[in-house]
Amino acid sequence: MKRKELILYLQKIFQQHHLSKNHSLICAQYLVKSELIGAKSHGLSRLKMYCDRIKKGVINPKPKIKVKKLTSSIFHINADNSIGFVAADIGIQCAIKSAQKNGMGLVAIKKSGHYGLSSFYAEQAVKKNLIVFCFTNAPPALAPYGAKRSLFGTNPICFGAPTGKVPFIFDASASIINRGKIRIAEKFGLKIPKGVALNKNGKITTNARQALLGTQLPIAGYKGSGLAWMVDILSGILTGSSHTGKTRDPFEDFSGPQNVGHLFLTINPRIFPKNNFIKEMKKSIKIVKKLPKAKGFSSILFPGERKNKIYKDNLNKDISIPSKIQKEMKALNVIK
Amino acid sequence: MKRKELILYLQKIFQQHHLSKNHSLICAQYLVKSELIGAKSHGLSRLKMYCDRIKKGVINPKPKIKVKKLTSSIFHINADNSIGFVAADIGIQCAIKSAQKNGMGLVAIKKSGHYGLSSFYAEQAVKKNLIVFCFTNAPPALAPYGAKRSLFGTNPICFGAPTGKVPFIFDASASIINRGKIRIAEKFGLKIPKGVALNKNGKITTNARQALLGTQLPIAGYKGSGLAWMVDILSGILTGSSHTGKTRDPFEDFSGPQNVGHLFLTINPRIFPKNNFIKEMKKSIKIVKKLPKAKGFSSILFPGERKNKIYKDNLNKDISIPSKIQKEMKALNVIK
Repeated sequence: MKRKELILYLQKIFQQHHLSKNHSLICAQYLVKSELIGAKSHGLSRLKMYCDRIKKGVINPKPKIKVKKLTSSIFHINADNSIGFVAADIGIQCAIKSAQKNGMGLVAIKKSGHYGLSSFYAEQAVKKNLIVFCFTNAPPALAPYGAKRSLFGTNPICFGAPTGKVPFIFDASASIINRGKIRIAEKFGLKIPKGVALNKNGKITTNARQALLGTQLPIAGYKGSGLAWMVDILSGILTGSSHTGKTRDPFEDFSGPQNVGHLFLTINPRIFPKNNFIKEMKKSIKIVKKLPKAKGFSSILFPGERKNKIYKDNLNKDISIPSKIQKEMKALNVIK
Repeated sequence: MKRKELILYLQKIFQQHHLSKNHSLICAQYLVKSELIGAKSHGLSRLKMYCDRIKKGVINPKPKIKVKKLTSSIFHINADNSIGFVAADIGIQCAIKSAQKNGMGLVAIKKSGHYGLSSFYAEQAVKKNLIVFCFTNAPPALAPYGAKRSLFGTNPICFGAPTGKVPFIFDASASIINRGKIRIAEKFGLKIPKGVALNKNGKITTNARQALLGTQLPIAGYKGSGLAWMVDILSGILTGSSHTGKTRDPFEDFSGPQNVGHLFLTINPRIFPKNNFIKEMKKSIKIVKKLPKAKGFSSILFPGERKNKIYKDNLNKDISIPSKIQKEMKALNVIK
């Protein structure tokens, strides 16, 4: 399906699920963007989950999102159990405006839900020549260092900076692989790599279902565990959202809203006098790219560069949709 | 030697190296603190290096440190090639005051030097019940992902949050082990663990000298490399300091000042209405500690807890000083 056609199709589905026309468009665009950058685990494979949550009353399709200004640069948003995309979209716009006006912005969002990829929001700030951090928490997937049961989410750290051209966007989870990839493997009956997850009994598993029921392994032991906890503090505790294992799994727990938290921080580098931020970023990238390459590498990429290329390559191509997901979409489209 | 006696002794040495009485005390206290928390790689083993840099004119013992207020919450400090401890001490006080007054503080420091451990500064903010990030860059030690030559520093991420009691302080480098540990191994002729560093030819080495001449391995491949680059952007590029391989090695390069950058960010959680930050932090720690333990663990610690205990245990004990370092100290003490 063509990109624009798919966006309209998804928008229609979200409208059928009682989201406003504008909110539906926001959700449709983010889902299609996931497909275009090759992050299928955050794209159409999640559509049914979002719709199911709306139907079961655990995502509010008509949220009254309240933005509270606490200082000239600090904002607190109550997302009223909105779908994550919509709350995060409002939040990042607020953080961008604040940094443009006051050099910095901090936006804490509570009572939200899964918002797709952090890089979506980081990119918007970077395109306005801002530095940005995006933090969000997620349902239990990682065991804290020293424990044998999952508690923290894969809780990504996302950081963006302008380069004058392709955004520098580092977006990495605290787990060895993304949970979304394990979900995709489960959905299509594929195996996961060895050494990235344990089953319920603490044994290494390559079975996606067993991994989801067990625990994923953090990067670098206590370091990955500490990073996941840090992100939970910033996006969960500081925002007033769920934290420390209380965030509901969107696919499996329909007993209430997720109450996910997000925290966006923006900094305007031009606030510093004589700052040649973009010029120095270009220099930095140039120096790195000129280094002698390690075995197996023909070029060195900066964070975000690969996904940007995939996006551009896919932008005007047909988006292929697996038949399993096509069926889901058709089923969702009949609702009046 | 007793703690207080050692502080006075070191203060005297720094004064003999033309630092003011107050600046000498700051440096002495931070060096002794490193010893007390068991981070010997950042303690007395670095004294000679700092003094050598002063003698060779690449640390300015009488810096004119300028603090520029850019907005109500953003500050830019030119450290005038001060020893890192002093500039960072001024910087964190500034960030603390700003967060107490305006909810948030951002302090960018340029023309500074190695400042010891980020956790020293984080702890001060946390003790005022603030959330804090401390970033600093360092000389080349890590190869960017895809390259075979060191360029980024081990560039730690340091994050702190109040718990009502022992500070939660996550302080981890982007490398598998700290460079300071390799330096200590070199100083005392010890081997380093396998798999943490490569020699100049890209082969795994357990020889500390070869590792220092070669490259350290980042945590989790591209993730560690990306985190190191992120810290370099925040503390190097944004502050207007050296970056991307230009930070001089304090032990080996006396051709000019290091021009290290630091970035401190503070957030006051009480700015958010109805925020029970400390109560929720306590809850979070309690939940984690109650989890079933992994094999080999009798308890689960939160970041910073172990070092805090070591510090308290050592506080009133004699600090043992290896004879090699005692000799260095005596030699430094004769300068008039």
